[in-house]
Amino acid sequence: MATIKVHGSPFSVPTMRVIATLYEKQIEFEFVDINLRNGDHKKEPFISLNPFGQIPAFEDGGLKLFESRAITQYIDDEYGDKGTKLTISDSKKKAIMRLWLEVESQHYDQVSTKLVWELGLKPLFGIPLDTKIVEENEAKLDSILNVYEKRLSESKYLGGESFTLVDLHHLPSLHYLMKSQIKKLFESRPYVSAWVADITARPAWSKVTAMIPN
Amino acid sequence: MATIKVHGSPFSVPTMRVIATLYEKQIEFEFVDINLRNGDHKKEPFISLNPFGQIPAFEDGGLKLFESRAITQYIDDEYGDKGTKLTISDSKKKAIMRLWLEVESQHYDQVSTKLVWELGLKPLFGIPLDTKIVEENEAKLDSILNVYEKRLSESKYLGGESFTLVDLHHLPSLHYLMKSQIKKLFESRPYVSAWVADITARPAWSKVTAMIPN
Ligand SMILES: N[C@@H](CCC(=O)N[C@@H](CS)C(=O)NCC(=O)O)C(=O)O
Ligand SMILES: N[C@@H](CCC(=O)N[C@@H](CS)C(=O)NCC(=O)O)C(=O)O
Repeated sequence: MATIKVHGSPFSVPTMRVIATLYEKQIEFEFVDINLRNGDHKKEPFISLNPFGQIPAFEDGGLKLFESRAITQYIDDEYGDKGTKLTISDSKKKAIMRLWLEVESQHYDQVSTKLVWELGLKPLFGIPLDTKIVEENEAKLDSILNVYEKRLSESKYLGGESFTLVDLHHLPSLHYLMKSQIKKLFESRPYVSAWVADITARPAWSKVTAMIPN
Repeated sequence: MATIKVHGSPFSVPTMRVIATLYEKQIEFEFVDINLRNGDHKKEPFISLNPFGQIPAFEDGGLKLFESRAITQYIDDEYGDKGTKLTISDSKKKAIMRLWLEVESQHYDQVSTKLVWELGLKPLFGIPLDTKIVEENEAKLDSILNVYEKRLSESKYLGGESFTLVDLHHLPSLHYLMKSQIKKLFESRPYVSAWVADITARPAWSKVTAMIPN
């Protein structure tokens, strides 16, 4: 097996999405720390891995990828025989799983990225938060979690009856949001709250959180 | 084969993404027009198809889906033997295709959605445009198209050597943007310009544009 390399930062939500997948699949990898403060992501050699100059980037032998969700799907496809199976095979159930992958990407991510920045990362870097952005996105997250609560009352996990990439893709932002005032939005909903407790307790996920500086 | 139904509007970019896929695959379907002005998308029966109250929604027998990109992938998977094959099978090439599917969804779509609304739809509805939003997103699109120009100088299509869902997912917004001031951003780049000419000339696509009111 060729050496797998993940280029990114332990603070970065999409980087941690990729690393969580590798731990679930029990695949060894080398972590290459990209220093965003130095602008390493906008220079060579990184910019040749991702022309958008964003972390993470990924290498598996000669294959070079970027975009966290493309990387996680590649890993699950390519290493189907290793560790946890993170996708569903049955064609109709797979379609439902894909729909929820899209919900994370198109609805949840846009809101959670802003809240993680405001409430999780800005305090670490000593930057004052923008209360208007927080309020707007808190209201949007509240509506999204109404949909999640209903879904999780009917299905054990968001993508279907087993833990899949859909749930995994949410883990890194939950790490920050569950330490912030936003926690209450998750805890006030019984099914969402049980889902968060379940997926954040996975052994593979605790290996990831051990890498994230406090 | 069960009746396939697409619920949406002929003005809507994600609705047209689904219909373009059905025409490429030569699959018959029933179109259910959802009137956004009447708020049909926020009421029953539509809201049971998509709890986010957004078009399009899709039915194939008992299977109900929403999110345009999940629908297009389902159609190509499920009806693999019909019409154009819109995805790539080889695992490494498929990973590259998925990366570019993500680029459309994570980079291009966020910018093009705003520009289509400002420059394509607001004029139809007689709403004044917001020049600041146009300028900001025009600059972002310019950077994205630099990446596309390089990619298309190395690969005939964005996802690989054949036309795939990656290219198709761009078609509906191109319909509006190529009729606006934004056209110049595409036409000034030789590879991007040839790609736009190629993909918009597909017979399946002209069936879609025939449905879009002027
Ligand atoms: N859609 C991308 C998002 C990547 C992303 O936004 N990365 C951030 C760090 S978390 C970044 O590199 N930001 C620097 C920049 O955009 O200049 C993915 O899922 O991989
Ligand atoms: N990510 C969704 C986007 C759907 C979407 O934004 N639909 C718009 C019309 S083009 C809509 O229904 N807007 C009404 C609303 O959001 O209330 C998809 O790809 O299907």
